[in-house]
Amino acid sequence: MEKFAIGVDLGGSNLRIGAYTSSGEALASVAFPTDAGSGYGPVIDKMCEAIRALHAETSGYGKFAGIGVGSPGPLSLPDGVLHNPPNLPGWDGVQLRREMSNRLAWPVWVDSDANVAALAECRLGAAAEYDIDSLCMITLGTGVGGGIVLEGRLWHGMNGGAGEVGHGPLILDGPKCNCGARGCLELYASATAIVRRAHELKLDGVPHDANDACANAFTAADVAQLAAQGNPVARQIYDEAGFALGLGIANLINTLNLPLFTIGGGVSAAWDLFSPRMFATIEEFSYVYGMSRPAQVDIFEAGKTHICRARLGPDAGLLGAAMLPWQTARHHALSSAG
Amino acid sequence: MEKFAIGVDLGGSNLRIGAYTSSGEALASVAFPTDAGSGYGPVIDKMCEAIRALHAETSGYGKFAGIGVGSPGPLSLPDGVLHNPPNLPGWDGVQLRREMSNRLAWPVWVDSDANVAALAECRLGAAAEYDIDSLCMITLGTGVGGGIVLEGRLWHGMNGGAGEVGHGPLILDGPKCNCGARGCLELYASATAIVRRAHELKLDGVPHDANDACANAFTAADVAQLAAQGNPVARQIYDEAGFALGLGIANLINTLNLPLFTIGGGVSAAWDLFSPRMFATIEEFSYVYGMSRPAQVDIFEAGKTHICRARLGPDAGLLGAAMLPWQTARHHALSSAG
Repeated sequence: MEKFAIGVDLGGSNLRIGAYTSSGEALASVAFPTDAGSGYGPVIDKMCEAIRALHAETSGYGKFAGIGVGSPGPLSLPDGVLHNPPNLPGWDGVQLRREMSNRLAWPVWVDSDANVAALAECRLGAAAEYDIDSLCMITLGTGVGGGIVLEGRLWHGMNGGAGEVGHGPLILDGPKCNCGARGCLELYASATAIVRRAHELKLDGVPHDANDACANAFTAADVAQLAAQGNPVARQIYDEAGFALGLGIANLINTLNLPLFTIGGGVSAAWDLFSPRMFATIEEFSYVYGMSRPAQVDIFEAGKTHICRARLGPDAGLLGAAMLPWQTARHHALSSAG
Repeated sequence: MEKFAIGVDLGGSNLRIGAYTSSGEALASVAFPTDAGSGYGPVIDKMCEAIRALHAETSGYGKFAGIGVGSPGPLSLPDGVLHNPPNLPGWDGVQLRREMSNRLAWPVWVDSDANVAALAECRLGAAAEYDIDSLCMITLGTGVGGGIVLEGRLWHGMNGGAGEVGHGPLILDGPKCNCGARGCLELYASATAIVRRAHELKLDGVPHDANDACANAFTAADVAQLAAQGNPVARQIYDEAGFALGLGIANLINTLNLPLFTIGGGVSAAWDLFSPRMFATIEEFSYVYGMSRPAQVDIFEAGKTHICRARLGPDAGLLGAAMLPWQTARHHALSSAG
């Protein structure tokens, strides 16, 4: 009998729900604004109602495995408790998994948006293409998130804190981060950072008056376009992002020695702008990479370290959420006792 | 029926062999100089002869599980192939596991010295005390090594490159390392680094003439003694080591979210000298630690991040080697195809 599951991509602005087969084939989906301002109760009510409707629509397909949710963080895992999530103001302390389980008759798994994207890339993206089951995915969006999949399962660590590759010491004389550290990867390689640097470096074409209506509409993609046209300041900004990514990935290679590191999120579209410096930096700073560099970066070789763009684009989160019922995340046995 | 195994601690200077029960009880042991200059063949011959003699002496104990070897690195795993090991000159390319299997009738496992120490600390040291099965151990010796144990098994990555926490970008304006990177942890927290800094900073009491016979006898422990007596330069050296360790551990916490990080090796005896700055740095640079800090660093709490001195001292390597037959290391499935 065929099997299917429902995935939820719970974003700060939009909520997407999709039913997928166990091999990732889309059956049906629905999307609507999150309306986070209405409070967590009504949002979860509406989300669960939409899940029930989608289940009714697709239940003829086969055996239903349950529901997976990709949520903005920070959140404790496996319980899915939100800790003051910047993208869902007012949701601090919400026990998302319990709230959903209380409303639905099916099993529910909650994980972070960065983790579910990593799971999707492992099951259906680059790792699947290479027939390997371990990777680290770095998502370059508004912030920088990460997810680590080891032998087909997300590595949560004790309570979901694993894979926070966007934060921690990287460039010590860099700016202070909201996380408390200085020079975090997020301060160089997120979309927010690209735009901030454009303002700091007074990139031509950027409205420098914060009251200018255009200032807020200026994006990392605009900086990428200027860089592609040869603007040296814009090129410098992506070069800096590549340097920071290279440092972060060098550390991850020396720590984890994984076969695949993949980079997704909106900023990854500028791959050609940041990846040359990224590869040069990894080469310089990771001798483990030196010992395991493939002859050509885009041709898979067993036993080598591969670094590539993520394959699944913006659907990774929704797909990965729907993959949650098919895996059992690794988390330290004591996490539930904590 | 009781079970036992034989562990080998293959050092550049000394070779130790010990028979242990599966619970870590010592049955018998032997030690002799490695005499690495005689070439790998004769050393391995002599080692295997001593293993056979020890096995004959202890075989009455019970069922024999096999032999585990902790070797200086770098080496590929699980095959145990040495790559130009600085502590065993002339051993480049030696297939240690195969060489031993060819000489012995029992199963042989080879792992790095840093990894087997981590395994011992997990099975019989601090982790056992806390009843947890995952940790990262950092060994501060001539160099800085690391080992990661996840759910009771060593994490090798693809081919044994995992856990190389002594190398990789950390302090970017720091000195160049032999590994190619700059500002590696090994350049601050190894015994070699402590002595180098003492010379660089012209620490009182250090013979600054390299031709002085005493210069070579001056050790990291001597710097520690001066620091304990209040010498400000010696204190600064250990403070710098604590800062570098704090940065490295902050990154590891944010990446792995493990319940335990333990620090061993000779330099760890100076715990009181380097740990205050280490803890302050972790606190500043790892927000995951901020969310999982135990109320008291020396009292175990489930779900919290613990950082402590290793428990087993210099026997960790020998004990851990003897634990290898009791575990199946995790390494990526493709490693043997590579």
